[in-house]
Amino acid sequence: MTTTSSIGELPRHLVEAAVRDALAEDLGLAGDLTSLATLPADATATATMSAREAGIIAGLPLAAEAFRLLEFEPLVSDGAAIAKGGVVARVSGNARALMGAERVALNFVNHLSGVATATRAFADALSGTRTRITDTRKTLPGLRAFQKYAVRCGGGSNHRYSLDDAILIKDNHIAVAGGVGKAFAAARAYAGHLVAIEIEVTSLAELEEAFEAGARIILLDNMDNAMLRRAVSYIDGRAVLEASGGVTLERVRGIAETGVDFISTSQITMGARPLDLGLDVVIA
Amino acid sequence: MTTTSSIGELPRHLVEAAVRDALAEDLGLAGDLTSLATLPADATATATMSAREAGIIAGLPLAAEAFRLLEFEPLVSDGAAIAKGGVVARVSGNARALMGAERVALNFVNHLSGVATATRAFADALSGTRTRITDTRKTLPGLRAFQKYAVRCGGGSNHRYSLDDAILIKDNHIAVAGGVGKAFAAARAYAGHLVAIEIEVTSLAELEEAFEAGARIILLDNMDNAMLRRAVSYIDGRAVLEASGGVTLERVRGIAETGVDFISTSQITMGARPLDLGLDVVIA
Amino acid sequence: MTTTSSIGELPRHLVEAAVRDALAEDLGLAGDLTSLATLPADATATATMSAREAGIIAGLPLAAEAFRLLEFEPLVSDGAAIAKGGVVARVSGNARALMGAERVALNFVNHLSGVATATRAFADALSGTRTRITDTRKTLPGLRAFQKYAVRCGGGSNHRYSLDDAILIKDNHIAVAGGVGKAFAAARAYAGHLVAIEIEVTSLAELEEAFEAGARIILLDNMDNAMLRRAVSYIDGRAVLEASGGVTLERVRGIAETGVDFISTSQITMGARPLDLGLDVVIA
Amino acid sequence: MTTTSSIGELPRHLVEAAVRDALAEDLGLAGDLTSLATLPADATATATMSAREAGIIAGLPLAAEAFRLLEFEPLVSDGAAIAKGGVVARVSGNARALMGAERVALNFVNHLSGVATATRAFADALSGTRTRITDTRKTLPGLRAFQKYAVRCGGGSNHRYSLDDAILIKDNHIAVAGGVGKAFAAARAYAGHLVAIEIEVTSLAELEEAFEAGARIILLDNMDNAMLRRAVSYIDGRAVLEASGGVTLERVRGIAETGVDFISTSQITMGARPLDLGLDVVIA
Amino acid sequence: MTTTSSIGELPRHLVEAAVRDALAEDLGLAGDLTSLATLPADATATATMSAREAGIIAGLPLAAEAFRLLEFEPLVSDGAAIAKGGVVARVSGNARALMGAERVALNFVNHLSGVATATRAFADALSGTRTRITDTRKTLPGLRAFQKYAVRCGGGSNHRYSLDDAILIKDNHIAVAGGVGKAFAAARAYAGHLVAIEIEVTSLAELEEAFEAGARIILLDNMDNAMLRRAVSYIDGRAVLEASGGVTLERVRGIAETGVDFISTSQITMGARPLDLGLDVVIA
Amino acid sequence: MTTTSSIGELPRHLVEAAVRDALAEDLGLAGDLTSLATLPADATATATMSAREAGIIAGLPLAAEAFRLLEFEPLVSDGAAIAKGGVVARVSGNARALMGAERVALNFVNHLSGVATATRAFADALSGTRTRITDTRKTLPGLRAFQKYAVRCGGGSNHRYSLDDAILIKDNHIAVAGGVGKAFAAARAYAGHLVAIEIEVTSLAELEEAFEAGARIILLDNMDNAMLRRAVSYIDGRAVLEASGGVTLERVRGIAETGVDFISTSQITMGARPLDLGLDVVIA
Repeated sequence: MTTTSSIGELPRHLVEAAVRDALAEDLGLAGDLTSLATLPADATATATMSAREAGIIAGLPLAAEAFRLLEFEPLVSDGAAIAKGGVVARVSGNARALMGAERVALNFVNHLSGVATATRAFADALSGTRTRITDTRKTLPGLRAFQKYAVRCGGGSNHRYSLDDAILIKDNHIAVAGGVGKAFAAARAYAGHLVAIEIEVTSLAELEEAFEAGARIILLDNMDNAMLRRAVSYIDGRAVLEASGGVTLERVRGIAETGVDFISTSQITMGARPLDLGLDVVIA
Repeated sequence: MTTTSSIGELPRHLVEAAVRDALAEDLGLAGDLTSLATLPADATATATMSAREAGIIAGLPLAAEAFRLLEFEPLVSDGAAIAKGGVVARVSGNARALMGAERVALNFVNHLSGVATATRAFADALSGTRTRITDTRKTLPGLRAFQKYAVRCGGGSNHRYSLDDAILIKDNHIAVAGGVGKAFAAARAYAGHLVAIEIEVTSLAELEEAFEAGARIILLDNMDNAMLRRAVSYIDGRAVLEASGGVTLERVRGIAETGVDFISTSQITMGARPLDLGLDVVIA
Repeated sequence: MTTTSSIGELPRHLVEAAVRDALAEDLGLAGDLTSLATLPADATATATMSAREAGIIAGLPLAAEAFRLLEFEPLVSDGAAIAKGGVVARVSGNARALMGAERVALNFVNHLSGVATATRAFADALSGTRTRITDTRKTLPGLRAFQKYAVRCGGGSNHRYSLDDAILIKDNHIAVAGGVGKAFAAARAYAGHLVAIEIEVTSLAELEEAFEAGARIILLDNMDNAMLRRAVSYIDGRAVLEASGGVTLERVRGIAETGVDFISTSQITMGARPLDLGLDVVIA
Repeated sequence: MTTTSSIGELPRHLVEAAVRDALAEDLGLAGDLTSLATLPADATATATMSAREAGIIAGLPLAAEAFRLLEFEPLVSDGAAIAKGGVVARVSGNARALMGAERVALNFVNHLSGVATATRAFADALSGTRTRITDTRKTLPGLRAFQKYAVRCGGGSNHRYSLDDAILIKDNHIAVAGGVGKAFAAARAYAGHLVAIEIEVTSLAELEEAFEAGARIILLDNMDNAMLRRAVSYIDGRAVLEASGGVTLERVRGIAETGVDFISTSQITMGARPLDLGLDVVIA
Repeated sequence: MTTTSSIGELPRHLVEAAVRDALAEDLGLAGDLTSLATLPADATATATMSAREAGIIAGLPLAAEAFRLLEFEPLVSDGAAIAKGGVVARVSGNARALMGAERVALNFVNHLSGVATATRAFADALSGTRTRITDTRKTLPGLRAFQKYAVRCGGGSNHRYSLDDAILIKDNHIAVAGGVGKAFAAARAYAGHLVAIEIEVTSLAELEEAFEAGARIILLDNMDNAMLRRAVSYIDGRAVLEASGGVTLERVRGIAETGVDFISTSQITMGARPLDLGLDVVIA
Repeated sequence: MTTTSSIGELPRHLVEAAVRDALAEDLGLAGDLTSLATLPADATATATMSAREAGIIAGLPLAAEAFRLLEFEPLVSDGAAIAKGGVVARVSGNARALMGAERVALNFVNHLSGVATATRAFADALSGTRTRITDTRKTLPGLRAFQKYAVRCGGGSNHRYSLDDAILIKDNHIAVAGGVGKAFAAARAYAGHLVAIEIEVTSLAELEEAFEAGARIILLDNMDNAMLRRAVSYIDGRAVLEASGGVTLERVRGIAETGVDFISTSQITMGARPLDLGLDVVIA
């Protein structure tokens, strides 16, 4: 039996819609003027997509969709590590179609591979600990599902996708609700039994209050490592603990060694820089 | 008379569509569960959007649209420099509506201000030269119009927006067309008289060939500064010259001092990191 | 402080899109031919929406949106019980606009009030027990968010909204994964820490296996009341228990008295019959 | 020559759009988490869709579209009667794809088969009479075309689809227009020669007035059977007569025996309960 | 009481969607570059829309929607005759917004006024006869509802809007169905009682066959005037007769004088030339 | 090597979207009632699309898309001249599918072939001169990309597609900017280096001012031929000259003989009359 992967798949309807919109954005009303002007209608081309730097690949299903009128053959899978110079995929077919989709395919893959590569760097920094890196809702508008998928490609875990698939009670909510206990109870009463609830705390006193109110997923916001250690010690495995705030690649291992379960950061989504991949084209 | 600005405006239909889609992405089928559970329907809130670090602001019209059910008051204009701690805008109104739109507004403004800030850094590095920094088509799918606007907010210039609004003849096109002259003639014959044509060259011989073929906008690809200087000297003001390839903030001034008109880089769009802005909310 | 409601609000973008599509469906390319032919352009009308039978109201924000070019005044709130003959809302304004939106408004309110009324009947049957009625994903395509909202209007609780906001492991998944333990572990490994996981079991042996594997939300599928009682006794408050299968208004109290936390049924969504409300119009 | 059917076909663009939207509603941003977590990417499955109760099938083209990435083989046609336990269709292919589309396919088929089954019950009650059962515009928003198709699958006839494809003059229109004659003349003057016009009357005096004004399709609203008989007798085949108001399965035959041509009711659309069909899946 | 008009109104959802799409088509990703570059953000403008030639106005609601961010004041109503030089509307407000919507507004009004003007020419040619000019489905894709509305503005009548709102049986359908009688019966059996049915005939023998089969709306295709007269004489008011084929402004009166009820032609929709209206702008 | 064509290709995403919308417009909620009623589901048909008059063909890819469920075989290419009676394409397959798409296919091809034919008439009138006919933004909303493509099919050249792909400075812009020089400088400063800039002038004095300000693409608005000749003489090949205003087929050669490079007119887009093509269908 094939083993299941922690990466999963991108929903097909999202891939189709995003690529269609991206092609429309790039081709506009008149299409790829340069190729229409200089390439014969029946010219064919072959190309290899290769990595100009090492990293983790993510987004090949989007490239495949961008090149859907051509033969697209991925040579690695999303989540694979690629060395500098490594070939990621081959594509061949009508030259105008290839040139007209090149930039869209690369823009997706370069950005998402950047997300995966940044995530992998954090995941590697956590190697040997029990802590996992996780993302946030600090994502690029319209690209959240893809960025969260790329986080999984890099070995990260996903925080909630949207405001409607889990509850995260923050300081303002607690203040208005009249305290941690009341806020937690209100959340539990409102949401169905399949909605997870997390509460954000900023001190050990709040942590204790939250736990006693029934919270079993707790966000430790902007605590230093000493305080995180005391929080881990207090909880002692009875709840899931997530640390957030000021997370950098340099600091992340130290945070993990406090024993928290998850560390969340926007450095792996909105803050990721693209991975440099290019298309080397030969037109016949 | 009010002077016109080099920033211009975001087309209204793009702002409305992008914000509507981003809100749908974040609110899903069930909305902001946390706020619905913990905040009374008639609670009101006020918030200030402030900069956690210094930079250039871009994207406030998108924030205004995200907060369209509330009172949104920008305190600076897109393109303004903001100091660390500076307040960018105020928003007030229904608390649930404010909390439900907060992340969408910030995701746009943080990302686009990052683009503007990166652009400004390059523009500042070019200060006193005649050279302008310009973007590329290496942009995030779905966000190109916004990123290009943010580049203008940062003092940069825009390259073509899409494959259909200008021609850029690259090596592959030239090879298939049978040379620079034939490629340029094919482009001129195909495109209307309001379509600008640029040709990419990689050597001085190609530069001369392109100029003699009639090219008046020429991309000097991956040339070192010495070669760029010779190219500038050869053209001597008779054409617009753009340099690209391996552009970094450290190298950009040196490239500019060769005398080229434009330097293009994806560092200011896809490669920009977000500017850290946050919303400080008080719910009544 | 105003108390929060367990009903919440319909996301604005869903209301706008659904009503726009429904009006397009009913008005087509030529509009309300009858009113255009027989009513002067400046005729005005007033109408009351009233209940032809007693029930629970749901969907007034959709009616308000359908009548957005008119004055729409709801006299009760969603979730309110209305007696036979009771007036739910008033609307007035341009007669053609009113007649052209009448059916769309009623179709939403009649259907959703039917859902709320059916839910209330189940909720009333559970009165005095600790058990809550909850919905399923057996909903009408395109109307899920509205039906789940109407369930809350009727006093019910919501199960997951979609395949992507919680995990529900069924027999097929367990069989392929190689058992309850492996399936649960796979789910936990794949999903983020804010994704709730429920497992379906059909026997006490499976229940025990699931609980020991770590499951804390368990679906007891098609068990008779005697077996449900043994399940409740075994779990003894250590997990959330949901009963499903063959639920009817007649049987539901008996099931609740076994002590389960939730009873799920499609009788309150896809199986609900509409509540009869009508619009009494006077055109001036 | 193959005989034509009274059922017709669902327009392709409606099927594609409705299924795409329904899949998006169910799969969201992250897809079928349960299957992604527990089923290998290359697992295959086979399933049979079978009836848990007897009824009339409708909606298989929507199921086929939902399963478009799999092999879908309908064993009966829309409009066919199925016995309890009868197999309606087989589907096989990738297990994740099958599980991810199962609920969407069933929600369409269960609801529309419910409509067809309810319609068939009314049609059977009219057996031997010259009267046909017909639907109304009391349909579920977004599903009207499908519900009206299902009515035909059940042996019913369709009333107008929308406000713009026929005229139906009601009491309010008549009052404003200044009487039946003026209203009918206004309608005839406004509408093209391919727009059918029906007038609603509530008494024999109005019926006579309508007929003399030229009306040849007349709606007899809320008349008792005695009055309906007098109306039929008066018209004597010179116009099409439709009865509406308070129609139930128990009363419908009595109404038909008055000799009216059509009886309209929302019991067969909005008021229909779903037919219970399920998918029995085996995953390899 | 205000008298009702034979023009009716454009459905609001169509106006909004068409104008939004047209503005997107013209403004693209970067907006009105010329105005952004040369006009201050706060410049204001006033303009008058006036006729460069005499004709009938249609489409002002689309202009109003295009100028929705400005003050738009129509001075005449759709359907009004305007003299050469006549002022149709005034618009004032932000200069960039006005310039950016000018062409979209004019493209709609010029085209639709052209349709109305062509229709009026035909209607005038029929003056004093009982015959009305009517359109066809030979319309410009995406603009059918607007063209048919403009036909009414010009005094014409509308044929069916689409394949689904009436039946028009042509020679091919008759041949396959096995004759006029069978085709008519099949149509009557398939369609609901509010679907009008027209049959096309090309000879007097077919006309008689159609009438005897029950047809009461009959299309006389490509008959010369002598044959049309015989058809009118045969029918003698017992059915609606429509003539089509080779209709020109020169021939139309002669056709009308045969006594047919309707004459249909695509000269008034797809074949209409635009009316020349322009916008005279003054920017402050 | 195949030579490239000046016609290019229609962007695929535009073809798919326009045809999908046109089919939805024509098929509505219930589909092609006539064919559903009278043609067996498995009937097949073959048809030829032929020209009822001579002209230039454009739009076959849209017909191919409309007939995508059938076998569609174009016999000529877009841009080809067809004689009266000439066969343009063959299509065969399911009869209902063919009849349901016939009108959509013809509406596109007839209109666009009309545009191409009108353009060819102007192009032929310019034969032997160096002047090319070019279009404007006076196009039908939603059809601009197709009309501009058809202009190329007829041998014409394209002006800018939209407000955002080139700058055209008109009198109002110049007046507000404070003169030709300032307006040109503002445009150059605002727009990127790949945005072409054209200025409109109405006198020789303005022409000289524009040229000296740096303008190299100049629109000569509403000048008589004598003045055009003086303008051509003054410029003497140093800029591209476009003439516009009052262009007719009769006047166009005289204008061209003044030596201008381009003549623009809306006669070839909005003002074109359709080419008469029909489908001759045989249903088996």
